[in-house]
Amino acid sequence: MNPNYTPLYQALTYRFKQEHYLTTALTHRSAGTPNNERLEFLGDALLNCITAQTLFERFPNAREGELTRMRANLVKRDTLVQIAQHLALGQYLRLGGGELKTGGNGRASILSDTVEAIIGGIYLDSSMNTCQSVILQLWKKFFNNLSQRKIKDPKSRLQEYLQSKQQPLPTIPIYRVLNINGTDHAQLFKVECLVPGLSQSTYGSGESRRRAEQSAAAKALKVLNVD
Amino acid sequence: MNPNYTPLYQALTYRFKQEHYLTTALTHRSAGTPNNERLEFLGDALLNCITAQTLFERFPNAREGELTRMRANLVKRDTLVQIAQHLALGQYLRLGGGELKTGGNGRASILSDTVEAIIGGIYLDSSMNTCQSVILQLWKKFFNNLSQRKIKDPKSRLQEYLQSKQQPLPTIPIYRVLNINGTDHAQLFKVECLVPGLSQSTYGSGESRRRAEQSAAAKALKVLNVD
Repeated sequence: MNPNYTPLYQALTYRFKQEHYLTTALTHRSAGTPNNERLEFLGDALLNCITAQTLFERFPNAREGELTRMRANLVKRDTLVQIAQHLALGQYLRLGGGELKTGGNGRASILSDTVEAIIGGIYLDSSMNTCQSVILQLWKKFFNNLSQRKIKDPKSRLQEYLQSKQQPLPTIPIYRVLNINGTDHAQLFKVECLVPGLSQSTYGSGESRRRAEQSAAAKALKVLNVD
Repeated sequence: MNPNYTPLYQALTYRFKQEHYLTTALTHRSAGTPNNERLEFLGDALLNCITAQTLFERFPNAREGELTRMRANLVKRDTLVQIAQHLALGQYLRLGGGELKTGGNGRASILSDTVEAIIGGIYLDSSMNTCQSVILQLWKKFFNNLSQRKIKDPKSRLQEYLQSKQQPLPTIPIYRVLNINGTDHAQLFKVECLVPGLSQSTYGSGESRRRAEQSAAAKALKVLNVD
């Protein structure tokens, strides 16, 4: 007999039609075979892909490096453990005796692997689209955090920070192109960022004026200790 | 005006409806923006996911480690470069002056990144299903190579190898369980593999008799220098 999965289905916003996929996803290798190792392989790939697709769509102006960083943030172990805790996975895990005794149902690696295995199981039990919906629902908070903070570009963040300070007069950063090297499609801009009241300038370079300014602004944020 | 993409469409077994996706996919960052960096991010994730899904389906008995190794083989740079050469990508690349002069259109990193970017472009131009079909067609040879050789388990390969040798009498390996340790779900089997005519036995252990035998057979293949 299976345990009562109803609370888990509610937290997942998904009800398994073929419950054996869920049971396998919850089975750690210490409990024998079949276990969740293959599902984890599949779920890891799906999670990576679905987060990549979503970030690509939602952040049309983010560069590849920024997309990579955001995805790493969404799929890192710490995030997966938070999802596992939200699902209260610890109480459903099927562990071997040794793992059970040594607290395996609270271990980060086991919890995060199980989240991936459940994603693999949902895909097999339904479709890519359903799997995507479940992920977007479970990860909603983490996607929103990205949108609110990480994603704002450094120039906007610097401007907002300076405006938020109670200065006698509003302060805005000043950008100045120092030089442009190279020709045609291989130009390199060097830009200075001056923040009134800040004793040191910061500098940035890039393939366009905009990128060089963003780089200089990012450095000013560092000097100001604004994360 | 775009170059004549007809031969590329034939090699790809796909014709872009929105050709700007292909043009962007072929544009290296050295040629300015928009370039293929974002599409490469997307295509890399899609390729990883589609190869994982395919391997999972095609090799229902492969363990997670084997699936991971096979996927690494399918998505490694060397494989991507072979795909790029099949597509004759070098002649379509859009590179900046510096990259062009230094042979960028033959560089492995540029070719393999561009293959990923084209996959991202096909997905945006069509659907996940179409993207999958194109990948399976382009990678057909590589998937077949996996099926024919890598995937056979060590016991089967050892048996086939011994049968292929022109011995006076057919030779088969003999497996013997030496001991079983542990209890319940945490048993550990130790198995000896005896190959008639081979002076040394080999040994393997595992969580089941079958796995221990596979491990011992793998070691016998090593001793026999069979890859």
